[in-house]
Amino acid sequence: MTCPFRIGVAGLGTVGAEVVKLLCDRRDLLAARCGRSLDVVAVSARDRRRNRGVPLDDTEWFDDACALAHRRLDAVVETIGGADGVAFDLVSQALDRGVGVVTANKALIALHGAGLAERAEKSGAPLGFEAAVAGGVPVVKALREGLAANRIERVYGILNGTCNFVLTDMRKTGRAFDAALAEAQALGYAEADPALDIDGVDAAHKLAILASLAFGTRVAFGSVFVEGVRAVEPVDIAWAEELGYRVKLLGIAERRADGLSQRVHPCMVPRELPIAAVDGADNAVAVESDRAGATVCEGPGAGAGPTASAVVADLLDQARGLRLPAFSLPAASLETVPAIPVERRRGAYYVRLAVSDRPGVIADIAACLRDRSVSMESLVQRGREAGGVVPVVMTTHAVEEAAMRAALADIARLDSVAGAPRLIRIESL
Amino acid sequence: MTCPFRIGVAGLGTVGAEVVKLLCDRRDLLAARCGRSLDVVAVSARDRRRNRGVPLDDTEWFDDACALAHRRLDAVVETIGGADGVAFDLVSQALDRGVGVVTANKALIALHGAGLAERAEKSGAPLGFEAAVAGGVPVVKALREGLAANRIERVYGILNGTCNFVLTDMRKTGRAFDAALAEAQALGYAEADPALDIDGVDAAHKLAILASLAFGTRVAFGSVFVEGVRAVEPVDIAWAEELGYRVKLLGIAERRADGLSQRVHPCMVPRELPIAAVDGADNAVAVESDRAGATVCEGPGAGAGPTASAVVADLLDQARGLRLPAFSLPAASLETVPAIPVERRRGAYYVRLAVSDRPGVIADIAACLRDRSVSMESLVQRGREAGGVVPVVMTTHAVEEAAMRAALADIARLDSVAGAPRLIRIESL
Repeated sequence: MTCPFRIGVAGLGTVGAEVVKLLCDRRDLLAARCGRSLDVVAVSARDRRRNRGVPLDDTEWFDDACALAHRRLDAVVETIGGADGVAFDLVSQALDRGVGVVTANKALIALHGAGLAERAEKSGAPLGFEAAVAGGVPVVKALREGLAANRIERVYGILNGTCNFVLTDMRKTGRAFDAALAEAQALGYAEADPALDIDGVDAAHKLAILASLAFGTRVAFGSVFVEGVRAVEPVDIAWAEELGYRVKLLGIAERRADGLSQRVHPCMVPRELPIAAVDGADNAVAVESDRAGATVCEGPGAGAGPTASAVVADLLDQARGLRLPAFSLPAASLETVPAIPVERRRGAYYVRLAVSDRPGVIADIAACLRDRSVSMESLVQRGREAGGVVPVVMTTHAVEEAAMRAALADIARLDSVAGAPRLIRIESL
Repeated sequence: MTCPFRIGVAGLGTVGAEVVKLLCDRRDLLAARCGRSLDVVAVSARDRRRNRGVPLDDTEWFDDACALAHRRLDAVVETIGGADGVAFDLVSQALDRGVGVVTANKALIALHGAGLAERAEKSGAPLGFEAAVAGGVPVVKALREGLAANRIERVYGILNGTCNFVLTDMRKTGRAFDAALAEAQALGYAEADPALDIDGVDAAHKLAILASLAFGTRVAFGSVFVEGVRAVEPVDIAWAEELGYRVKLLGIAERRADGLSQRVHPCMVPRELPIAAVDGADNAVAVESDRAGATVCEGPGAGAGPTASAVVADLLDQARGLRLPAFSLPAASLETVPAIPVERRRGAYYVRLAVSDRPGVIADIAACLRDRSVSMESLVQRGREAGGVVPVVMTTHAVEEAAMRAALADIARLDSVAGAPRLIRIESL
């Protein structure tokens, strides 16, 4: 057996403590798998006295996380969080000094991934971030290694468990968004401040990472179009069911001849697709490739257990001596490609309007659509209330989003239309 | 860039030719990924003159596949097939001589995996078989590396695309088994001789491999209980739908305190489960682990493209110098555990009987169940035909299979029961 693999853990919150516990619980198994023991020899956390239920007696303690980068370690586990500040400093310094890094920090990788990959390459240190996407489901490994011989055309998925839980709960109970979010918080599926999740930013971080791995492009978080789930109403979910769809917050990245399209927004997806059946707090990642075909991986997308599982898998790889480019290709050969704005999305749309119940309204709406060359697929005006306001729901055939938006702007200006039209993109996938 | 990685390909059928083609098509990408070029320098196939659409001009040809084991190669790709004969000889000799092996041959690994892993370990040569299970979906890698920190409790899945296609077709069209199989053959989803697939043997090969990877046990194909799909009738599929289930051929392996349970048979699974939505020729593998939770991966389970994708991923790993024990643990530490026979399965059952339509029949059947302590959950006798034969369908609560079988044997002996009872296991999963 070769010398122990010396690990420093920065941050002993839920994830950090679970990583230490897992390394301790599975000590013998892990050593058998990689031929050397994985030893936590240093940690950094604020409060030394708190009992975290993990044995840390023989471990060196540091108040300053960055000090870990300067110890004689084989790898540093970063579970501090945040795209900048201490997490960034620690990871950068460790990589610069040739110390391997394993992190679950999606914001850090989405914002600084390309630069960190360069630093890693320069010193020869590995950079692992399996835990940053889809919890314990090894999708980073699947893209980086398992599907490495494929040309990948599209990668998409349910990338945020909080949003998926809320949308599932709204569908199953008929609850409004706020009530479903409160339920998610009560059950521990949403943070006290859920903004990063429900506004789609967390999913966008993960999508940017997946896109880079899938297409060999530099991570481009800044060009992800992001729309969260706050505006989804129970009535839209009910309509989706009636139309044969299910509402999901998807992240979708496509490599096209003219560039890279990355977007996160609520979608209506055909109910018979496997991804429509992914309920609750699960994540799912679908990859469409030229040889392996369409593959989907699903599992719990967050939580201490799944995250620690992924972190320790990365540590095992590093302890075995696996040295892969962080994004599967040498940093210098990662391409920078033009961003395709969401206005150039081509697809079908669901639109819900509130209109005055009087003759001629539908004709006006239809004229607006015609003038922008938007072709209607179906229209339903249900319920009558002479002189009052009634809902109209329509779906379109595939059209470019710019035209759809122009038509909706025209429609919103009609006297007979009350309030802003509600739009949800239909993705046939 | 280090020296080229020299590959020999044995067998140039659909898969072998596609491997050569993929290595050629993606030459630059693959070299960028692993830092050296992957060169096919030798091949072995029967007919040298056949045009396979791949460039083989600079390649050494051998009539005897085993000759490849004795060339100066880094890896041999075995696509000959068969658990014994040339495939076994070539793989054994290559491993003995320290040449890496990559194979898609599930029969070979299911029957000889443990012994081959020992040979590989002795010489230090890697043995890759990602392509043996679930086509291009990297489930071997997920178990061997991605989930390596977990204690795995159960692994199960839809492991045969032919069976899944046939069952899906029967459900969607109402066709009988033979007609659905003919359709599968016409569309290329079933071999001319489909026995290995529809009798469940192919799924059993894959299950034995997955179980070894998941539980750290020696591959034990011989103790897999196998029942294929020939006996599934459209009426059972219709009943499944009515009862809220879907009929799937599953392979299920469980590690229990008293041993290892491995079985392949048709199941009724709750329709709302993700695995119930896996239709057509796709495969899906679900893993239940203590940290990462329940994960499922799905994709095309066969075909030249997916298989070549997996073979080349294994070659990339080997070219990068990745050396892992074939079953994730050193061969000597793989456990041999007692097999739990299917008679000790505990679960619910669906039973369909043909009975004489006369008073007292149900009472007789109920008495047989009571005498074996089998608790009925539901019973439906639909349609009346005084003096004739009518179907009775029932489901039971969870019971041990031995008791269920004993009760069914008693029931089959009743005068009022015509023909053998039809039994399908219900898996709540």
